[in-house]
Parts: sequence; C-alpha cells; structure tokens
Amino acid sequence: MSVLETTLKKIYPQDSDARDAARERLNNLTMPHWALGDLMDLAVDLAGMMAAAQPVIRKKVITIMAADHGVTAEGVSKFPVEVTVQMLQNVVNGGAGISALAWQSGTDVKVVDMGVHADLTELAAVGKIINAKVGLGTDNMALGPAMSRTMAQKAVENGIAVAETLAADYDLFGTGELGIGNTTASAAIAAVVTGRPVAELCGRGTGLDDLQLQHKIAVVEKALAVNTPDAKDGLDILAKVGGFEIGGLAGLIIGAAAHRKPVVVDGFISTAAALIAALLEPFTKDYMIFSHRSVEPGHAAMQEWLGCGRPLLDLNFRLGEGTGAAMANNLVEGALAILTRMATFEEAAVSGADK
Amino acid sequence: MSVLETTLKKIYPQDSDARDAARERLNNLTMPHWALGDLMDLAVDLAGMMAAAQPVIRKKVITIMAADHGVTAEGVSKFPVEVTVQMLQNVVNGGAGISALAWQSGTDVKVVDMGVHADLTELAAVGKIINAKVGLGTDNMALGPAMSRTMAQKAVENGIAVAETLAADYDLFGTGELGIGNTTASAAIAAVVTGRPVAELCGRGTGLDDLQLQHKIAVVEKALAVNTPDAKDGLDILAKVGGFEIGGLAGLIIGAAAHRKPVVVDGFISTAAALIAALLEPFTKDYMIFSHRSVEPGHAAMQEWLGCGRPLLDLNFRLGEGTGAAMANNLVEGALAILTRMATFEEAAVSGADK
Repeated sequence: MSVLETTLKKIYPQDSDARDAARERLNNLTMPHWALGDLMDLAVDLAGMMAAAQPVIRKKVITIMAADHGVTAEGVSKFPVEVTVQMLQNVVNGGAGISALAWQSGTDVKVVDMGVHADLTELAAVGKIINAKVGLGTDNMALGPAMSRTMAQKAVENGIAVAETLAADYDLFGTGELGIGNTTASAAIAAVVTGRPVAELCGRGTGLDDLQLQHKIAVVEKALAVNTPDAKDGLDILAKVGGFEIGGLAGLIIGAAAHRKPVVVDGFISTAAALIAALLEPFTKDYMIFSHRSVEPGHAAMQEWLGCGRPLLDLNFRLGEGTGAAMANNLVEGALAILTRMATFEEAAVSGADK
Repeated sequence: MSVLETTLKKIYPQDSDARDAARERLNNLTMPHWALGDLMDLAVDLAGMMAAAQPVIRKKVITIMAADHGVTAEGVSKFPVEVTVQMLQNVVNGGAGISALAWQSGTDVKVVDMGVHADLTELAAVGKIINAKVGLGTDNMALGPAMSRTMAQKAVENGIAVAETLAADYDLFGTGELGIGNTTASAAIAAVVTGRPVAELCGRGTGLDDLQLQHKIAVVEKALAVNTPDAKDGLDILAKVGGFEIGGLAGLIIGAAAHRKPVVVDGFISTAAALIAALLEPFTKDYMIFSHRSVEPGHAAMQEWLGCGRPLLDLNFRLGEGTGAAMANNLVEGALAILTRMATFEEAAVSGADK
C-alpha cells in the first residue's frame, strides 16, 4: 500500500465524546449562554479534532509551499515568473506579508520548495527552506496535463512527509503558498470540483485588468477542454490542472488530519488544495478551520462546497502566503483560551441567570 | 475651565502628513496593490492617529469600567444585581471571558470601579482595581434622571483621569464594561442619539425571552418619556439615561484621543459611550477603532451613526467586558506589523507588476 493510502486510512472523524465534554464545560462558564458565539463553536471543533476535552496547542506553524506553473507561458499573471523565487527569498529574509503577520501571531513559518523553477539546493542545505521538490515547475495545462499522475501522488506524499516531521513540535498547522500562476490552476480545480462556470471562479489574482481577466478565463476553459479531469478523482484533477504546491498542501492537510491536528486553511489556492484533500478523504474536512474569505470570487464557492459556513475573518485579503491563516491563529488560540482558562459559575461563585 | 473642557480642546483630527507617508510606504510593499485590504486601511488610520509614519505600540490595555444601574429595579435583566460585583471579582481573579482573551492577545486589563453598589475600597487599596467611584449605582431612570449633570461630568472626568494615568505606559487603549442593566441604559442612549425606535435598538442582553424583551423596551420608552434628554447634549443624555461606567468610558475615549492614542471600542455599551464622546467632541471619532459587531441589534445602528463602516470582526459575540476589543487588538498589531516590518519591492529586490 502507498504512503498516501496508508495515511488516508488513519483519518477519523472528530471525537464526539470530546466535543460533548467541551460543550458541557462551555455551557457552565461565567457568561450568558454561548455569549462568545463563533469562538465557542470553534472550541468544540478543536476538542473534537484533537480528541481532548481541554486540548493544548504548544506551537503553531504555517507551511508555505512554493512552485512554478507552466501555464504562465499563456500570460495569465501581471508578475513575471521569477517573482516566485524572489518572494520565496523575501519570506526567508522576513520581509513578506506573511513574515509580518506570522510574527504578530507568534507563528513559525516553514518554506517548502515543492517545484520552483530554480535551483534552491543551497537554501535547503543551510536549513532556510525544506526541499520536497517534485519538478522544475509544471507543464502548461493549456496544452496538456500539468504533471503525470505519478508526480501528483508524489507531490501529495511529499506534503504528507512534511506534516509528519512538523507534527513532532506543532499542534496547529496552517497553509500558505507562493507561485506565480497559481490562482489560474486553483480556478481550474474549483471549476472541476464545484461544477460552476469558470467565469464565476476566476479572479484578478495579482491585479489583472478586464481584458487580462477574460484571457485568464479563456486559458482555464481551454485547459479543462484539453484535459477533461474527472471531478471525483482528486489525483486526476491535481495532475491535469493542479500544481506541485497545491499537491503539497493537500498532503499537508491529509498528514495533519492523520495526526488529529487542526489545519487553518488560508485563501484561494490553499482552499483549492483543501478540495483535493477532501476528494481523497472527506474526513479531512473535520480538521479544516477556514481562516477568511478572500477577495478572489471563487473562494466563497469552494468554501461552500467544503461546507465551511462563514469563515472567521473577512478583511478583503487577496495575498495568500498564509496571511489569513496567521491572523486566524489568534482566534483559534482565543477559542482554546475560553475553553481552558475561564471559570465556571460554580468555580467563580457567580450567581446564574433566573430561570 | 473644567478638566473636561480643557481636555476636549486638546483633541485634533488625524495627522494627514503621517497618513500620506504611511500610504506611500504601503503602496511600495512586496505584494499586489493593497492586497492586505482592511488592515492596510487600518494602518493608515493608526499613522494618522499617532501622527507618525511608522507608529509604535509598546503595551496594550483594556480598561473595564464597572457600575450598577437603578433601572434594574424594573426587572430588565435575567441576572441579579450582585452579579456586577461577582463578575468584577471574577475578572480580578482571571476567570472571566476578558481574562482569557486578553491573555491570548497580550493585553493588560485594568478594572475601574465607576459606581458599583458595594464597598470595594479593600480591592482598590491592594491595587486590584482603580477607584474612580461617582456613586453607589445610578438612580432608576424610569422614574427620573439616572444621575445629576454634575455627576455625569464627574464620571467623564474620572474616566479622563484614568486615561491620563494609563497614557504613560500604554499606546493602545481598549474599552470594556461590567454592570447588570447596562444594555438597557445603552439602548436608551442609542435611541436618543440615532433617533431610531427603541424596539429596533433593544436586545436580549444577558438572555431575555420575548416577553421580557417587550418589558425592557417599555422601560426604555418610559425613561425617555420621563426624562426627555437633549439629543445634541452628551452630558444631558448621560445624566438622564446613562450610567457611571458609560460616562467613565466616554472619558477614557476623550482622554486617549487627547493623547493621540487609538482606542479599540468594544461592544454595545462601549459604543454607547463612544456616542457620548462623539457628541462632546466629534474629533474623538478619528481615534476610534471598531472591534466587532455585537449580536445586540442596536450595535450596527450606533456604529453607522459613528460612521465606522464594517467593523474588524463579526464573531456573534454578545458578552461585553472588552472581549471583542481583545481579539481586535491582534488585528491592530497586524496592521502595524504590515506597515513597519514588510520590505518594499526595492528593499527586497522583487520585480514589480507589468504596467
């Protein structure tokens, strides 16, 4: 049995006893009934994910998977392809958006080379990034499959391996990504999985104008026509219209779920990876926390398909990198603090409500 | 000239040079244009408030003002009046909702006795709370004014004095409150200031049923008919249908604005205090950050009157205590981190977008 198959078999639904125990305690805390609303719902989920009535989060990590996309040859991004490497360097040097917001939330950042079109062995050798490279960028999905099915499985399994390593130290995972062209691949995945029209799911990415957006939509439609991915087969979709970082993130989510670790899912590209993970094993959805709603129009459609309800934040972000996850991490910690640090009416000797 | 008048004269609008300088830097940071949306808008505001292109927040504090309300004699709350003192003790002991969420966000909590119906001199003597008491709870506003105009001014000035003291150590202020009956007073203030019907502004507070809610609406309508507050006169409204903690919070906001310190405004009661502050000096609005939207139906109407736009969070909170402000503090720090810690395209040698 493959690593992927073995790992998928280790994923179980949330623990209902732990959920019940958490709910029982939350109902007795010193406040009017459920007065901290959404964070109390989240606290119940965290208990269920971690199978503990009073779960503990030691350290938090956001994993940024980076890769390049052959479809950039079609002119789908405003930024040149070398920006993937430049932004990876910027994250490593602490100057990116995720660097600022991960610092604020006390979250460690790990950068993983899943398939950047450059030789990054030196950065990996000195431990600045993790090498999990599957190839030097995908092929152009407008002309044929982005990668082989074997490579798709390898991308997911490399992501699982990263999760295995990180699980020793971290109890809260988050997703992030870098890769010029990856909103194009993500829109294609969203179209296949949700069945909605490409035009509803494609956004301006790094800042396309109207004409450029129409071109991006046409490129995605062509990629779908050329490749005809099977909407029920996560690996087929990933291979035909995905990306190495998207596969890596799907693997990260799968690996985290197999370890009963909550995963804070970031924006548009991360959510495309969540779609792949959910197709491979629907119980992975039990471990996803949806950080925010992106400005990218397809994000809401993907979140709806995943059944996420309203995400935690709505701050008009459209950057990716894990920036929404970094800010949501504070709310996850807040939810746990409510569950584990507040006093009950009895403990605090506070009078209850009149019946 | 009174302390109140002197302090109001020290409040200026946001600094437009600092706003321009911040916007200029934000436009050159390594991301697509304005890709961290609302937090970038907030960063511009913070620069304007603090009159610095790269402002610094050393420490954060949420000030919880506590007081009792004579209107509880009308049976407007599900909880008995002694819960004000019990919850104050719970905050002091670290077991309240605000204790958990302030801990998460690294925010100090100060508790101020503005007018609790109990002798709290021992707690003040050992430094557990700040004594700024104006009286032993207000009078019943359904029968006459809640307090005299002199007491209303004293409540605001005591709040200013608290802000003066805290300004030495803290650069980010937040509001919180405790006081059984204070959603009733706040709904009355909201009705006077916004001119909307009481029935649209009254909520279930700590958990009223339909019949109890109808009674609460009738009590507020009676208080307004008995007292006829002047909708343009903040002190008149505070005196007739307000509360000591609401006056204290209005003073805290005024004092913070006079020191060019941003104030994160919490929920329904805090926003009623913000209305009073804005009536006394409209430029105080330039220093308000709106943390969240409460479940209390009148909250949105008050925020709209204050011109706040969409608040930062919407988590179905209805607890008060400053809990929404505690979670929003993370976003304020995030906004500053974007402005002060990210690299520009030039600094990071990242290629810009095609024109």
